[in-house]
Amino acid sequence: MKYSPLLSELISALTCLPGVGNKSAQRMAFSLLERNRDGALKLSAVLHNAMEHIRHCERCRTFTEEPVCEICRHPQRNESGLLCIVESPQDVLAIEQTSSYQGMYFVLMGHLSPIDGVGPADIGLDELEARLKKEPVEEVILATNPTVEGEATAHYISQLCDSMNISATRIAHGVPVGGELEYIDGNTLTHAFSGRRKL
Amino acid sequence: MKYSPLLSELISALTCLPGVGNKSAQRMAFSLLERNRDGALKLSAVLHNAMEHIRHCERCRTFTEEPVCEICRHPQRNESGLLCIVESPQDVLAIEQTSSYQGMYFVLMGHLSPIDGVGPADIGLDELEARLKKEPVEEVILATNPTVEGEATAHYISQLCDSMNISATRIAHGVPVGGELEYIDGNTLTHAFSGRRKL
Repeated sequence: MKYSPLLSELISALTCLPGVGNKSAQRMAFSLLERNRDGALKLSAVLHNAMEHIRHCERCRTFTEEPVCEICRHPQRNESGLLCIVESPQDVLAIEQTSSYQGMYFVLMGHLSPIDGVGPADIGLDELEARLKKEPVEEVILATNPTVEGEATAHYISQLCDSMNISATRIAHGVPVGGELEYIDGNTLTHAFSGRRKL
Repeated sequence: MKYSPLLSELISALTCLPGVGNKSAQRMAFSLLERNRDGALKLSAVLHNAMEHIRHCERCRTFTEEPVCEICRHPQRNESGLLCIVESPQDVLAIEQTSSYQGMYFVLMGHLSPIDGVGPADIGLDELEARLKKEPVEEVILATNPTVEGEATAHYISQLCDSMNISATRIAHGVPVGGELEYIDGNTLTHAFSGRRKL
């Protein structure tokens, strides 16, 4: 015996969520049925709406339901001449929350990874090249993750910028503020020393 | 700056799932948008369908989209004269997976808990009483959880059965099979000793 067909279908559909296995899906299904049917109906509607309407911004490739996202429409940001390259929309949010950067973004939606078959075209580097040719970008700030793939991607884009005579910079790597030296890994410490600055 | 309005709405709607906070909801939203839009659309449809159609079985109160669930429609089970009382539909599944019980069920969908305002009517004990009067039940098996509330609920129902001259039994409590004595709590060990049987 299993649950009724519709209930089984609901449980199996919930496992499409990342990190949700069969047991969590059961718990979610029962919790929604018992305590939050309105919330579940709302989720169903928003989920449908979002999947139908959220596309990539035509300029920076982040997720948005409009053709061009809010940041790309911002006039002062357009005049800044700064273009920050990040891997994901979450990175844009993290940077925006610091309020310290007032330029434009370009979201790769991934990183170069030949082993997984992800090449330059898959992360929109042809679009980036076209944009660099068209727009007056003075500096490209490479804010990809400090992983092997992120570094490789940053290196690839910096070569692209070189060939177009645009200055490319990489965000600083070093000891996180509030961190303690003894717990920092050797690689980060090496970066911190090689990137030291005069006080 | 936040995400686009629709994306923010999706993230907030996902937090209606139990155990999903803002950060997990973000991860889910991006994962669905990037990698599994079809799965999300399916989930949206199934969620709507399930919330609209899944109700309680008229006889045993478990979740089902039909008026009476599959187990309650089973002729041999109806003739068994056994009625097992459990707290939740998940308990029915757990018992069914053992294949050792072939009677009927009654699902309380909770337990007596005066402190939370849950009284006998809220867990369907009036329906249970009507059913016991109407149907030829020989034995009521109390399989509520061995918690304070579960025990109180079992005690309450056993008194109800007494007043109707129906035999009420409680499932055995003791050392779980495969468990090691040294790790078993004292309460369980006391139960195991008082419930000992002749070999």
